[in-house]
Amino acid sequence: MDFESLAKQYQKELLDKVIPFWEKNSKDEPFGGYFTCLDRQGKVFDTDKFVWLQARQVWMFSSLYNRVEQKPEWLEMAEHGARFLMEHGHDGQLNWYFSLNRVGKPLVQPYNIFSDCFATMAFGQLYQATGNDKYAAIAKQTFMNILARENNPKGQYDKLVPDTRPLKGFSLPMILCNLSLEIEHLLDSDLVSQTIDEAIYEVMEVFYQPESGLILENVTPEGHFSDSFEGRLLNPGHAIEAMWFIMDLAERKKDEKLMQKAVKIVLDTLNYGWDQKFGGIFYFLDVKGHPTQQLEWDQKLWWVHIETLISLIKGYQHTGSKECLQWFEKVHDYTWSHFADPENDEWFGYLNRRGEVLLPLKGGKWKGCFHVPRGLYQVWQTLEKLK
Amino acid sequence: MDFESLAKQYQKELLDKVIPFWEKNSKDEPFGGYFTCLDRQGKVFDTDKFVWLQARQVWMFSSLYNRVEQKPEWLEMAEHGARFLMEHGHDGQLNWYFSLNRVGKPLVQPYNIFSDCFATMAFGQLYQATGNDKYAAIAKQTFMNILARENNPKGQYDKLVPDTRPLKGFSLPMILCNLSLEIEHLLDSDLVSQTIDEAIYEVMEVFYQPESGLILENVTPEGHFSDSFEGRLLNPGHAIEAMWFIMDLAERKKDEKLMQKAVKIVLDTLNYGWDQKFGGIFYFLDVKGHPTQQLEWDQKLWWVHIETLISLIKGYQHTGSKECLQWFEKVHDYTWSHFADPENDEWFGYLNRRGEVLLPLKGGKWKGCFHVPRGLYQVWQTLEKLK
Repeated sequence: MDFESLAKQYQKELLDKVIPFWEKNSKDEPFGGYFTCLDRQGKVFDTDKFVWLQARQVWMFSSLYNRVEQKPEWLEMAEHGARFLMEHGHDGQLNWYFSLNRVGKPLVQPYNIFSDCFATMAFGQLYQATGNDKYAAIAKQTFMNILARENNPKGQYDKLVPDTRPLKGFSLPMILCNLSLEIEHLLDSDLVSQTIDEAIYEVMEVFYQPESGLILENVTPEGHFSDSFEGRLLNPGHAIEAMWFIMDLAERKKDEKLMQKAVKIVLDTLNYGWDQKFGGIFYFLDVKGHPTQQLEWDQKLWWVHIETLISLIKGYQHTGSKECLQWFEKVHDYTWSHFADPENDEWFGYLNRRGEVLLPLKGGKWKGCFHVPRGLYQVWQTLEKLK
Repeated sequence: MDFESLAKQYQKELLDKVIPFWEKNSKDEPFGGYFTCLDRQGKVFDTDKFVWLQARQVWMFSSLYNRVEQKPEWLEMAEHGARFLMEHGHDGQLNWYFSLNRVGKPLVQPYNIFSDCFATMAFGQLYQATGNDKYAAIAKQTFMNILARENNPKGQYDKLVPDTRPLKGFSLPMILCNLSLEIEHLLDSDLVSQTIDEAIYEVMEVFYQPESGLILENVTPEGHFSDSFEGRLLNPGHAIEAMWFIMDLAERKKDEKLMQKAVKIVLDTLNYGWDQKFGGIFYFLDVKGHPTQQLEWDQKLWWVHIETLISLIKGYQHTGSKECLQWFEKVHDYTWSHFADPENDEWFGYLNRRGEVLLPLKGGKWKGCFHVPRGLYQVWQTLEKLK
């Protein structure tokens, strides 16, 4: 494999096609923040602003500024979104809304703790870019709110009756693996270590099921399997994405065993989640093979494939696993031939099982300036180390 | 068209294949209520009990008892579910939970007003079958709760910020068109007339948009179009289903103009919502042609097609419209060749855009003993009048 030309391919796609797409199409000059509902050509088709995606774009441009090049226009793009988020994104107590209308009036209450997670990432990264203490304070306070809400993330909006079938979800410990490194520079080192160790334990010991070699999306508070729709649910992309967060932590901790285990989970999940008939990775599966509640279970989503590329190339980088490299080639081919748009910039997000475009959008309620550019950056940087 | 043999076909499918499937597979003897998560062969794959489906099955068996034949086993099947619902289905104030575990402990809070709607239908129909005042009281009180909650159906579980973009939904006025006739025998006739007239006005004047000839799923409180994801949403099956409720009301009111308008809406919606490429009716569309938020937008669902058959045959019965009959033939052919299972009883529920089986279940979280048997019954009865 020609790592040098591959690195170029990822770099060029990021810097010449994907980032320019968002620079050109997403900035809402009069009202602030970003448009994310963009059609195939980049035209705005809806003006609602989703806090996940506003914050992720602030993070992305700050991160490019910090890691690739200190371009003033990247920093300005990040601060443009940050101003909108500071003014409109939260309820005054740094509880972050889920969505806002174009001018910033809140549409959906702060029921979703991941809005807070992405706000933390955004302001943590922007603080690194600027040294502005205001940003540090927002990131830190929001992070503390997340830890306080951790055991009851939805609060009053939780429709589950508390005691009948208590379950905990994989998403929060998974994201804490990434978040704790993202804002390490803002936290007391004991809190960082403690958060990391707890998150690694949850992901690798509690949600990971050694019998199947797979990670479950929901388990009982004691970490057991629940034979219910929620308990049987697998989200292969989620599990695989978490593994590159774990690899980053294993690298930092110089924990070879943890690294090997993360690589094994990537490969086991991929073997299980790959669609043998049409290629690509399924969105949802039931661990007992029953029908899922998710009607979109067989669709092929951009982030699933891009996050898998990151985990595979990092797995190869750290362990030299040939299986990682073979899979990387296969997933790379699928991803570039199905998600990249030969006619326009940025990538498609939603394909049907056969790999045909299901929704011709480049951005929407859940797809913004995040997984494609972050993935291109991560793979590019890893390939640079391999060449 | 040979109405006589067609009537036989619908009758036989109902009485020889569909009802026996539920009689054989769904009854939970030890714990009460019904299993609805049944695989292709009828085997239980999950034991959760969803109040929508519990109540709908009580209604279905009561209704067969009242309208087809007074079989003691049908009444016992209905009362079996009713006992479970009375004991476990509500919070003590007849606010109906959304779901319960197998033994009846509540899983999901009473946030969903349609649980209450289906409970009302169930106990209203069961009262007709038995004359038992206990059932009448439950139906009546639950109906009063629905009217009281009508303007804030989700209560504390509503995640929308109240004033930014107030919208009202089509589902509730639509279902009130049907519900008011279902429990007419229990209500003061003034309340019935008032509820019916208001519901007809909402459905036919407020949600119906004369420019497009289509019914929107959500409009502003003043009945205007909202250019947002929710405001642009079309659910063709929903609109078409509502039209046979309206036809039943138009027949009762001897309102020829209303009948003609209902038929026109069925045909306009069908022309708009039919998939020219692969056949079948889309699940969701955006009235401006933008991508929907619903990833399942292009799937073909059983209830959409079955409800369409009812509206078409009733439209033909009441107006003699040739277009209704031509469409009936086309949708009949699609439905029987794609949803009916040549190897086992009951029908598939979820097909992909191409009409291939997406989930091989016969019942699940949303599909129970309702749309297939109700549709077969309604079409059979209408064909009987035509032959």
